[in-house]
Amino acid sequence: MKFVSFTRLGKAGFGAWIDGGIVDLTGRLAADCLTLKQALVEDLLEIAAEYAIDRKPELALSDVTLLPVIPDPQKILCIGVNYVAHREETKRPEVQYPTVFIRFADSQIGHGAPLVKPARSECLDFEAELAVIIGRGGRNISEEDAMWHVAGYACYNDGSVRDWQRHTSQFAPGKNFPATGAFGPALVTADEIEDYTALSITGRLNGTVVQQAGLSDLIFTIPQLIAYLSAFTSLSAGDVILTGTPGGVGERRDPPLYLKAGDVFEVDIPGVGRLLNPVIAEG
Amino acid sequence: MKFVSFTRLGKAGFGAWIDGGIVDLTGRLAADCLTLKQALVEDLLEIAAEYAIDRKPELALSDVTLLPVIPDPQKILCIGVNYVAHREETKRPEVQYPTVFIRFADSQIGHGAPLVKPARSECLDFEAELAVIIGRGGRNISEEDAMWHVAGYACYNDGSVRDWQRHTSQFAPGKNFPATGAFGPALVTADEIEDYTALSITGRLNGTVVQQAGLSDLIFTIPQLIAYLSAFTSLSAGDVILTGTPGGVGERRDPPLYLKAGDVFEVDIPGVGRLLNPVIAEG
Repeated sequence: MKFVSFTRLGKAGFGAWIDGGIVDLTGRLAADCLTLKQALVEDLLEIAAEYAIDRKPELALSDVTLLPVIPDPQKILCIGVNYVAHREETKRPEVQYPTVFIRFADSQIGHGAPLVKPARSECLDFEAELAVIIGRGGRNISEEDAMWHVAGYACYNDGSVRDWQRHTSQFAPGKNFPATGAFGPALVTADEIEDYTALSITGRLNGTVVQQAGLSDLIFTIPQLIAYLSAFTSLSAGDVILTGTPGGVGERRDPPLYLKAGDVFEVDIPGVGRLLNPVIAEG
Repeated sequence: MKFVSFTRLGKAGFGAWIDGGIVDLTGRLAADCLTLKQALVEDLLEIAAEYAIDRKPELALSDVTLLPVIPDPQKILCIGVNYVAHREETKRPEVQYPTVFIRFADSQIGHGAPLVKPARSECLDFEAELAVIIGRGGRNISEEDAMWHVAGYACYNDGSVRDWQRHTSQFAPGKNFPATGAFGPALVTADEIEDYTALSITGRLNGTVVQQAGLSDLIFTIPQLIAYLSAFTSLSAGDVILTGTPGGVGERRDPPLYLKAGDVFEVDIPGVGRLLNPVIAEG
């Protein structure tokens, strides 16, 4: 089952995305359950799927504006250099631990919304990634138990303002400009992805493939990431883990290939979704 | 005026700290204003001060458990290596931009609560800092306007798990273990600090001075930090900026001086407050 977060007539809600339309679930599973994150907190996704499966979509996709899959995660934990090809192109040494940085929720946009190239930079870059969405929280989660904590997956473009990312050793400024993190179109529940390592990920800029890899190429696997992250911080329902980007980012090309107004970037993970976002310039 | 966040009889609240006691403000300024952050969001601190100034404290400090000054900031933006002496001891080059990393709200504790040395590390270190609390939010704030956005100040111990901080280039894992960020005892309103550069900061471990500096020693001033941070992310009421730590941290001593169970660490900023926290070991 696929779930989406959206606004309609100015109000936020969420629903199941089936047969090309949306079964509205806002307030239908429980009176206080008005968001997809809340449905995860209350562990209602299975009930949501049962509710939605026999119903006809009441909303067309065109009736709503898609939001980031989870608009307000408590934590967005991003993993850097987690594909060998990207590690090599960034000339970083082999590492014993995952590289972890943090994105704020208010830097996110949904499927179809514009990525915004900041006025302060000409170096907005793309990073196609698989996002993992936590369903059941925890601390000190073992690798063996890790996948039980995963609610599902989505596509993510961890858009990066490279000059600001390189101002100092720490990435935060380059990873937190508004409207640089695209997250969508939907959460695909974990039961639909029997083996995530069989997935492939493709990034396309204006239709041309610029990134491509198999999820089996991850240096740190999803269970390893969940174990590592939950060793130092609690994970909660709705938290998001970005698993890293394959080689091919614009910064490492000669000449560099940065996003500019009028571009369209697509993250395509067959079985998970296709996330498309146009690029506009700020102001 | 000083404001504190606390729990009493299992319920969270906030109040003004005057004459050695607390005037409870929870729900008193507006029915929906149940936290200090909400009072900042609604721009009620001046009204709160007027309300509290003529009243007798109704709660003793011993009646409550102090929480982090702002228990749930949307953003905690931490600045690294912002004193020359600390930059030199960490052997980092001169920098053109502030070093920015992020702490999650759930890593925080209040005055008097124990700092927890993680079971996974023997390298919990202290970092005495001045915290700036944002009152009025904004984006692209100029240095000239920056101080208008400051609600007040507090002491902070940006406790750092050094081995996890050094796992990779990115600091996040070492800065986010639970109960490593001490924030208190109170927010001192900006009107009480005519010139923050006249403040001094002292860190004491078991009564012995281990860090000492003047806030005039900051490499990037508070207006410069606000301008830089708000250039890439929106600041909101209740957000916290940690301005960096002076030289003297335990990691850079020979031999290193890490926190262990039974220690007490104190951040003392005359005019702002004294933040004391004992150290316990996890588990």
